[in-house]
Amino acid sequence: MAYRVGIVGATGAVGQEFIRLLHERNFPMQELRLLASARSAGKTMTYGEHTFTVEETTPEVFRELDVALFSAGGSISEKFVPAAVEAGCVVVDNSSAFRMDPSVPLVVPEINAHALSEHTGVIANPNCSTAITLMGLYPLHQKFKLRRFTAATYQATSGSGVEGMEELQRQVESYAKGETVKTEFYPHQIAFNLLPQVDQFLDNGYTKEELKMLNESRKIMGLGDMACSVTCVRVPVFRAHSIAINAEFFEPVDLEEARQAIREFPGVELLDEPAQAQYPMPLDYSGKNDCGVGRLRKDMAFDNGLAFWVVGDQLLKGAALNAVQIAEKLHEMDMLRVPAKA
Amino acid sequence: MAYRVGIVGATGAVGQEFIRLLHERNFPMQELRLLASARSAGKTMTYGEHTFTVEETTPEVFRELDVALFSAGGSISEKFVPAAVEAGCVVVDNSSAFRMDPSVPLVVPEINAHALSEHTGVIANPNCSTAITLMGLYPLHQKFKLRRFTAATYQATSGSGVEGMEELQRQVESYAKGETVKTEFYPHQIAFNLLPQVDQFLDNGYTKEELKMLNESRKIMGLGDMACSVTCVRVPVFRAHSIAINAEFFEPVDLEEARQAIREFPGVELLDEPAQAQYPMPLDYSGKNDCGVGRLRKDMAFDNGLAFWVVGDQLLKGAALNAVQIAEKLHEMDMLRVPAKA
Repeated sequence: MAYRVGIVGATGAVGQEFIRLLHERNFPMQELRLLASARSAGKTMTYGEHTFTVEETTPEVFRELDVALFSAGGSISEKFVPAAVEAGCVVVDNSSAFRMDPSVPLVVPEINAHALSEHTGVIANPNCSTAITLMGLYPLHQKFKLRRFTAATYQATSGSGVEGMEELQRQVESYAKGETVKTEFYPHQIAFNLLPQVDQFLDNGYTKEELKMLNESRKIMGLGDMACSVTCVRVPVFRAHSIAINAEFFEPVDLEEARQAIREFPGVELLDEPAQAQYPMPLDYSGKNDCGVGRLRKDMAFDNGLAFWVVGDQLLKGAALNAVQIAEKLHEMDMLRVPAKA
Repeated sequence: MAYRVGIVGATGAVGQEFIRLLHERNFPMQELRLLASARSAGKTMTYGEHTFTVEETTPEVFRELDVALFSAGGSISEKFVPAAVEAGCVVVDNSSAFRMDPSVPLVVPEINAHALSEHTGVIANPNCSTAITLMGLYPLHQKFKLRRFTAATYQATSGSGVEGMEELQRQVESYAKGETVKTEFYPHQIAFNLLPQVDQFLDNGYTKEELKMLNESRKIMGLGDMACSVTCVRVPVFRAHSIAINAEFFEPVDLEEARQAIREFPGVELLDEPAQAQYPMPLDYSGKNDCGVGRLRKDMAFDNGLAFWVVGDQLLKGAALNAVQIAEKLHEMDMLRVPAKA
């Protein structure tokens, strides 16, 4: 079995990782089509010896595809995903458009691949900071039963797409030349600064990004009562997110068991040798598939608590890798097709 | 009354702020002496029309001084502070050497100036991230009675002194030129990276900096049972620290009362207009005396909880300003002298 695969948003930062990962991981493809906006149509892109011509995304193109990986923003997903599914094309959607839809599985394959068995054509890929956080948090939950957590994120500019990374690059170059640093993309300068805002603000004072951590974590882990309070901050880093977490569990925690739980969990590694100044850092986890957990210690604010630090590549486990893993898992389960309506 | 003032560590980042603040705030001085290591002795420094020759710090020099502001690291404080006090010179010490000594007041003047009345010659200035955190946390504690908090810091390179700022500058310049980025001062590259380590690690997995937040907060606020768990992270920012805080209180919280408590507290301002993308950022608080609080909202993990974000200049409220305010307060209380032994 080999699939006709489409990438929607192929020219974006995540889209380019899709192309690379599908090839490097030998995803069973008979064909790969790159889709984007009318503006990018006709542009050529290469990967290794392959050359692709970008096509405009239309409802019709999905008739010729078995699976499409979407990463072009919520409004594009809202516009084209229903047509794609109607045309018989399975969608793995990286936008937030369908994540909280009860009929759509929201999946981190290492955590809740079982949810894939009930898909009806669309599978949602979680928010980047949520997926990376859970790669550290879920193995500990399995062991000690999570009650609640607080977290502060340190989010890379890649989370805003190519434009975010380019703005940081441009500002640093201007600064180094002694020129005026211009702000064009973010609401404020990002170089040598921190923006305690990721995504838009809601009436309760939280940003959408902060609430995604609550709602998506609950859905992925199947923990409807779990509470969390998160502050999301954009930092002058290019492409890996970091998260400082304080978590409280229902059961007493044991540090060695906690370490072992992280070590045994797929897709995450324990890098925690403080005496040797070894801990995960975004520079080291850029381009890396696995997330890293370090600074693991008993929490001093919670009785059954653990404090730790997780780092992961925003474009990989935070986006493209997780989506490709979902497609791989569906293939393995022989479920990479739109099921007949019940 | 005008004092003979000495600055120990005058050539450092904090030392230079001492010189500026003492002049700008018209601290009553008959004389200002700049003290540093033998290596810097003989060097001249200027402020406005004043020129100073740096002298070597010796036990004898304190006989000619009424007050000395120390910021030259713990070992220099340990070496010279006892001699200074013995010689009749009051010391405001910015190092951690005497902070937890029960006979030494540890003071943020807006919070516990009353503790100054019991000084015996040495007053300790708190750790930078602790002082800045408390400028946001204490007004809320006054209103709602703090039970515990979790925090993640985003600490500027100035916290490591001039060398930290210079390393960031050098790395960014190399990066912009396309040269190899060299790491000389920090254990890892700081430009475009995050180091989840500030100060040394202890056996319990926390850093000294993280435990300072617990121990110093308890002492300053007079809350022996208060718990907190903190992750301290060095970020590629030059000179203002930021802290994301989740705090639980004994009493029910009211958001408007919380806002009012911040507004009414001296030395801190509420900058919290998310809809206009107005919140404190380190770039805006560099060089500013007041700390800023924003992102104030009900905490979603704690029942009686508030989440917020504090930013303050590490060299000012986090170091030099607070120390000068201590000296000013002692002058105002007519206590800027070493008391006779009981």
